[in-house]
Amino acid sequence: MSRRSIDHLARALARLPGLGPRSARRAVLYLLTHREAVLRPMMEALADVERSVRACSVCHNLDEQDPCSICVDQGRDASVLCVVEQVGDLWALERSGAFAGRYHVLGGTLSALGGVGPDDLTIEGLVARAAAPPVREVILALNATVDGQTTAHVLTDRLAATGVGVTRLAHGMPLGAEVGTMDDGTLAAAVKSRYTL
Amino acid sequence: MSRRSIDHLARALARLPGLGPRSARRAVLYLLTHREAVLRPMMEALADVERSVRACSVCHNLDEQDPCSICVDQGRDASVLCVVEQVGDLWALERSGAFAGRYHVLGGTLSALGGVGPDDLTIEGLVARAAAPPVREVILALNATVDGQTTAHVLTDRLAATGVGVTRLAHGMPLGAEVGTMDDGTLAAAVKSRYTL
Repeated sequence: MSRRSIDHLARALARLPGLGPRSARRAVLYLLTHREAVLRPMMEALADVERSVRACSVCHNLDEQDPCSICVDQGRDASVLCVVEQVGDLWALERSGAFAGRYHVLGGTLSALGGVGPDDLTIEGLVARAAAPPVREVILALNATVDGQTTAHVLTDRLAATGVGVTRLAHGMPLGAEVGTMDDGTLAAAVKSRYTL
Repeated sequence: MSRRSIDHLARALARLPGLGPRSARRAVLYLLTHREAVLRPMMEALADVERSVRACSVCHNLDEQDPCSICVDQGRDASVLCVVEQVGDLWALERSGAFAGRYHVLGGTLSALGGVGPDDLTIEGLVARAAAPPVREVILALNATVDGQTTAHVLTDRLAATGVGVTRLAHGMPLGAEVGTMDDGTLAAAVKSRYTL
C-alpha cells in the first residue's frame, strides 16, 4: 500500500505517552474519518500551541506570556513559593485549588543513576528567588519517591542559608484509599502523622 | 492562566480514541517539552496525511492513490472480494498476511438502533463489483457481533442474485485463549466447528 504518510503519522502519535502502536493506528483512522471535526482542529491546536506557548523565565511554567500569568498575578501570595518537579505537577496543584502562592518548576529531580546533577535543574534560580523579599516560605511539593525525597533534602540544605521556612507536603492515606491496599511506607507515615478529630 | 491554546489542544487530543482528559494533558505536556522531536514531526505528519490520503473510489480503502494500491495491484487475486466493516479491519487483515485478494469496505453495519440503513453503507457498490467478472467469491469478514452477523445475513441475500460464492470467517477460540475464560457462544461455535488433526 502507498500509505507512507499514514504509517508516518501512526509512528508520530505512538510517541505520545499513553498511546501504543495499536491505539495510534486507531487514532490515525479516527483522524482520517473525522477530518473536519478532529483532524483540522488538531492541526490548528498544535500550530497554536507551538506558536504561543513559552517557558516562563521566572518560574519555568509553560504559558502564553513571559513572565507567566501566575508570576504576574498580584492577587496571589508572593511570599510563598511552591517547588514542583514538572509543569504537570503545577497544573495538578492549580486544578486542586489548594495553593494560591507562586511556583518554581525544578525541571526534574536529582538522580545519580539518571545522571541528573544540580546544574541540570533550576536550583540556582530557586535559591535566588527564595533569598529575595517578600518570600518567607518554600513548600517542597516533590514526588514521594526516593529521588524526590533526596532532592528535597538537598534543597532544604541549599535553602537554609536564605533563612526562609522550608516545608513539605504531608504523607498519608490518599482520600478514597483502602487501608488494606496501602503500602507499608504510606501506612507507617499515616500512623505517625495521625491527628485528633 | 493564559493557557487557552494549551486547553484547546488538550481538548482536541482528548477526542482521540484511547486518550481521556488526563492522558491528553500528559500528552500536551510531552509535546510542549519535546517540540523538535515530537510536536513538529506530528504537525508535519498530520498535514501530510490531510493532504495526501483519500478514500478509494472502488473499495473505500484509505490510501495515497485512487484507485488504491490494493485495487490496482495486478499481483493480487481479483476473483475474491473480502468485505470488511471499517478500514481498520482491512489494515488488520493486511498485517496478518492471510488474504491476497481485494477488499470492499462497507463503512459500518446495518443497525436499526443506530439508524444505519442499507443506503448508508456501500452495499450497492459491493453488489455491482460482485456481479462483474472475474469475481467468484465474496468473503464476509464482518465482526462477530449481532449487528455484524445481521449485516452478513442481509449481504448474503443481496449477493445471491449475482451467483458468486459467499463465505464467512470461521468462529472459534482465538489463538492463545483459555477455555475457562471463553464465553458460551464462542465455546459452542468452537465445539460445533471442531476438526480432526
